[in-house]
Amino acid sequence: MTAPTDHSSANAKPARSGRTLISVDAMGGDQGAAAVVAGCALSASANSDIAFILHGDEKLLTPLVAKRRELAGRCEIRHTTDVVTMDDKPSQVLRTGKDTSMWSAIESVRTGDAAVAVSCGNTGALMAVSMIRLKKLPGVNRPAIAVLYPSSNPQGFNVMLDVGADIRADADDLMRFALMGMSYARNGMNMERPRVGLLNVGTEEHKGRSELKEAYDLIRDQSEIAGYEFVGFVEGGDISGHRADVIVTDGFTGNVAIKTGEGTASMIGARLREAFRYSPLSRLASLLAYTSLMRLRKAIDPRRVNGGVFLGLNGTVVKSHGSADATGVSAAIKLAAQLSANRFNDKLAARVAAALPVEETEE
Amino acid sequence: MTAPTDHSSANAKPARSGRTLISVDAMGGDQGAAAVVAGCALSASANSDIAFILHGDEKLLTPLVAKRRELAGRCEIRHTTDVVTMDDKPSQVLRTGKDTSMWSAIESVRTGDAAVAVSCGNTGALMAVSMIRLKKLPGVNRPAIAVLYPSSNPQGFNVMLDVGADIRADADDLMRFALMGMSYARNGMNMERPRVGLLNVGTEEHKGRSELKEAYDLIRDQSEIAGYEFVGFVEGGDISGHRADVIVTDGFTGNVAIKTGEGTASMIGARLREAFRYSPLSRLASLLAYTSLMRLRKAIDPRRVNGGVFLGLNGTVVKSHGSADATGVSAAIKLAAQLSANRFNDKLAARVAAALPVEETEE
Repeated sequence: MTAPTDHSSANAKPARSGRTLISVDAMGGDQGAAAVVAGCALSASANSDIAFILHGDEKLLTPLVAKRRELAGRCEIRHTTDVVTMDDKPSQVLRTGKDTSMWSAIESVRTGDAAVAVSCGNTGALMAVSMIRLKKLPGVNRPAIAVLYPSSNPQGFNVMLDVGADIRADADDLMRFALMGMSYARNGMNMERPRVGLLNVGTEEHKGRSELKEAYDLIRDQSEIAGYEFVGFVEGGDISGHRADVIVTDGFTGNVAIKTGEGTASMIGARLREAFRYSPLSRLASLLAYTSLMRLRKAIDPRRVNGGVFLGLNGTVVKSHGSADATGVSAAIKLAAQLSANRFNDKLAARVAAALPVEETEE
Repeated sequence: MTAPTDHSSANAKPARSGRTLISVDAMGGDQGAAAVVAGCALSASANSDIAFILHGDEKLLTPLVAKRRELAGRCEIRHTTDVVTMDDKPSQVLRTGKDTSMWSAIESVRTGDAAVAVSCGNTGALMAVSMIRLKKLPGVNRPAIAVLYPSSNPQGFNVMLDVGADIRADADDLMRFALMGMSYARNGMNMERPRVGLLNVGTEEHKGRSELKEAYDLIRDQSEIAGYEFVGFVEGGDISGHRADVIVTDGFTGNVAIKTGEGTASMIGARLREAFRYSPLSRLASLLAYTSLMRLRKAIDPRRVNGGVFLGLNGTVVKSHGSADATGVSAAIKLAAQLSANRFNDKLAARVAAALPVEETEE
């Protein structure tokens, strides 16, 4: 089997400097353009192989970029006049969003100027624009959003998808999610042979939800040729556990699950801070344990692993948290750079196409 | 509208002493009968109004009970020869489980000897036996399992259902879950006017999952007559949050969500312990903060709020964690006693029946 050759748009056109170009929506996040530019600067100093196409208001961006020595000669600004807000409806953005920084950022991937786009903007709108402009890969019925969830695995997190690109998935979609998630784990996280689990309410074969039983067989059947280990059904507790590296589920369940986990983590964090404020002794304790607690915070900090990635399109889109600060933006850019360097989307396209029935791959 | 009068089985026959009788499966838990008897003893000393029917091996239970002064004259032992194990299939227990302590514990509720049964045993088997023996309440198509989830609400937790009695629920089922959850919050948790939320992937009206939009309308329409506040759609993060007191969802989503939350909490706990072991300073800190950390642990300890409750049957069944120790068993018994004292199941039956179309209530 050979990789399809018609996905040249997924390859980055190298900048004049020979650097990998990353397309960045500078306007969409809650923290404003300054945080995004600061994130680019952080990434630029950590990785000399990357450069940026920044999309947004030129008047605003030019002085922000000029202030950062690290970005000298490594930022092309593409002027846009409009911004997608967090309240904008996806359908509305599709109709009237052509002049937004988000649209322009995706456009740079469509034309092949960059292999990967990064945005902190409105997730629904970003998915809609990405779908319409980049189009789905052959063999993909539903694209998916994959996130990294903190886990007790050696790598410190698991890949989980779909977490909300769509609210449903049939058995065939779930099998593609397995392939896409595996490809992401391999190319984004350097895992040679990821273990894939299918989310269910129990690990034994379960009555009902026939699409899960069907997906079980499909995912198992692909495991050898695709080079992953299928560990079978996993439960909610395994999302943060060590039984699997890739957790496959539909977008409704995945979205509820990760928000439940994040909410629980932040409730515990708040209670912990309260506990440490409670008495003079506990306040002293929090000072003594400061370094250890900061290390813990870093390990379970969503900002460090916040690159939600849209998979299954002709081009990769990394969605950063809306509230991402410079650290968060920089983490998303780091992921984007690695995926771009690994020619991830070509490999993913080949992988998904390989799972198609023969007559379809020959289309 | 009047309450149905044909649910006498839901009322406890008072013991000779005038105490409320609680039917306890003494054999099913991982910790063995000693932990269950110890839990009964804890509860007995805290609440002089309760007494027990203990189901299990008489030879084993008699000396355990005799050792506990608190239980003198307050424990009737019903001898059974068989035990449901955690690995037994529900279907198998239905066929061959008539001599088990679990079956006998449910039977005491069916005959009206007790209003509530408590078991630490196999959840699937317990649900199956409860369904078959107690039967569903009029107007209930699917029973539900409700749990208390630690939250940032003043009461410290939220009621969540269904977490796995069934793997699906249509709009009408979800509306009954809202009524049952509200009734549980009111009678088990003393909340006069609980706020009910319907779990979804966003708080705005959402495309697709038509049963959720339909359920939205049904739950809203019942809110005035049933006396709860409907806060609309809620997200995964609200399960541990303060926007709602009762979270309504189908059993698949609910099961994955609570297991995700529990898994995340235990991962954080493990990381926290690691952080405190890291250096001499952090070890000293953990000593200084010991009291505060124990207080935190208590607040988010599932053992304290571990009474999963089966709702929608002719009689109430409280499911304790399989691994419950005396504290956990005692918490489940405390909940069972309160539900029994409030004649909870009669009120729940009336509430659900009131939501039936008129012709059906007159059956």
